[in-house]
Amino acid sequence: MISVIIVGSGNVAQNLFHALQQTVGVNIKQVLGRNKTHLQFVKNDKLVNTDFTKIPTADIYILAISDDAIGIVAEHFKNKEGLVVHTSGATPVEVLSSLKRPGIFYPLQTFTKGKIVSFNNIPICIEANDDKDVKLLYKLGNALSKTVVEIDSDQRKTLHVAAVFVNNFTNYLYTLGAEICEEHQIDFNLLKPLITETAAKLEDLSPLQAQTGPAKRGDQKTLHNHLQIIKDKHQRELYTLLSNAIKEKHGKEL
Amino acid sequence: MISVIIVGSGNVAQNLFHALQQTVGVNIKQVLGRNKTHLQFVKNDKLVNTDFTKIPTADIYILAISDDAIGIVAEHFKNKEGLVVHTSGATPVEVLSSLKRPGIFYPLQTFTKGKIVSFNNIPICIEANDDKDVKLLYKLGNALSKTVVEIDSDQRKTLHVAAVFVNNFTNYLYTLGAEICEEHQIDFNLLKPLITETAAKLEDLSPLQAQTGPAKRGDQKTLHNHLQIIKDKHQRELYTLLSNAIKEKHGKEL
Ligand SMILES: NC(=O)c1ccc[n+]([C@@H]2O[C@H](COP(=O)([O-])OP(=O)(O)OC[C@H]3O[C@@H](n4cnc5c(N)ncnc54)[C@H](OP(=O)(O)O)[C@@H]3O)[C@@H](O)[C@H]2O)c1
Ligand SMILES: NC(=O)c1ccc[n+]([C@@H]2O[C@H](COP(=O)([O-])OP(=O)(O)OC[C@H]3O[C@@H](n4cnc5c(N)ncnc54)[C@H](OP(=O)(O)O)[C@@H]3O)[C@@H](O)[C@H]2O)c1
Repeated sequence: MISVIIVGSGNVAQNLFHALQQTVGVNIKQVLGRNKTHLQFVKNDKLVNTDFTKIPTADIYILAISDDAIGIVAEHFKNKEGLVVHTSGATPVEVLSSLKRPGIFYPLQTFTKGKIVSFNNIPICIEANDDKDVKLLYKLGNALSKTVVEIDSDQRKTLHVAAVFVNNFTNYLYTLGAEICEEHQIDFNLLKPLITETAAKLEDLSPLQAQTGPAKRGDQKTLHNHLQIIKDKHQRELYTLLSNAIKEKHGKEL
Repeated sequence: MISVIIVGSGNVAQNLFHALQQTVGVNIKQVLGRNKTHLQFVKNDKLVNTDFTKIPTADIYILAISDDAIGIVAEHFKNKEGLVVHTSGATPVEVLSSLKRPGIFYPLQTFTKGKIVSFNNIPICIEANDDKDVKLLYKLGNALSKTVVEIDSDQRKTLHVAAVFVNNFTNYLYTLGAEICEEHQIDFNLLKPLITETAAKLEDLSPLQAQTGPAKRGDQKTLHNHLQIIKDKHQRELYTLLSNAIKEKHGKEL
């Protein structure tokens, strides 16, 4: 049985709590947070702790807290013999270097407080200094998910950059799509099946193979017509930049 | 029973053929194309026609052909009494103005030849000049899909622009994500659950609400670190442009 203390009360902490509660071989000893009201998702009062000076012993402490707080909060774990991991894609393991057994347990997914997602499909990226700790993180990861990979801090940072492109930036394009619809009294819901299928295509095709559209075809007439329709300066700039990039990648004359 | 002739042998024609074949109340009279080998997906030889001078009578002719060929090919249908529709999001109905009964039957989805998709969830955008024809297109559309909407050519063009943002441009961001992974020997498959969830979130949240990431949080440290990692000039440019746009939209100081 792996005993775990979750630190934090946000998107990741809540999703981890929900998943680990149901995980065979894992025992959540406590959820630790600075704000009691934010810990209300923990129904069992005995599991709630807001006192960072009284942290019980556990095999693994998971710091699921804001990137810039990890270093500060880690100070409370200086004397702990257990493994202390953070869940951040962007933060190097060095931020935990004052600890005896630092590590990483980064779930590569987008979490929102209200929305509980299944961990089974979520890749867990782990890192630790010695083999014993790596093994323990594999054990925890495998209990939650079918994909656990050991990657170092540099690769994790790169993966996080790629995640920003396919998640944060993609979501921003959805925002622009919604705006364009709204400006013209069109129901954005009409675009949702297209959005789903655009993502689903990657099961069968690489994104390079899946590329379609006027820029890919080098269809100047449609590109020109679209720029007539788009009035917003920023939308036009982005339309041009991305269309030219697609044309270039797919070898069309500019 | 609505009798239909499909013109074309590409992504849309093949998907329409497959779906209409199984649709109660619809009879595919023929599939018409200029190239016999491209029509091999039609197993029943009697349905294949390559002679544009001998087109039988039907209730609806669906021109599922390249945008710039629609006007030319439409000439063959000048004397037809049936409804002649094209399937293009970007092409105005006027391109069919030489016909007796022109219209639009635009399925708002991304199609690929090899990949058969179900039409049930695909919004069908229809347009025709008189009520009787609109009704007929509703009937065909409703037989295929649970979402049929009447929109005019201007709205359809706008919808097509929005579709380019959420589909073509999004897929391009996937391409960059894959490139970044490849450069650093990271398996792009790790990002697929994130890609799927990014799209799935829109079931519960608007894209504005769903936005996350360093730019949204105004997290300058991570933005700076990411720009250290991204070496490619074009990727850097796009990273900066999109991050600034997200910061601006979510009211962070630049
Ligand atoms: N959200 C995602 O999609 C996602 C995905 C993968 C990894 N991550 C990583 O997971 C970590 C947590 O992200 P999140 O989205 O869950 O963040 P979040 O929802 O903003 O929650 C942040 C948590 O950190 C706590 N916190 C902040 N400063 C603190 C301090 N000085 N002392 C004690 N607690 C403090 C907050 O406590 P209060 O409630 O008291 O403010 C809150 O519980 C981050 O490292 C993030 O990079 C996030
Ligand atoms: N693909 C999509 O995701 C999608 C989605 C919604 C709407 N649409 C629209 O649907 C239409 C068809 O798109 P698609 O993706 O199916 O295109 P496609 O796969 O490129 O197929 C184009 C078809 O047009 C035929 N064609 C081209 N020029 C012709 C001519 N002069 N005479 C006769 N036939 C000609 C081609 O015949 P050959 O095989 O002989 O070259 C081919 O069968 C377009 O208007 C497009 O905008 C496409």
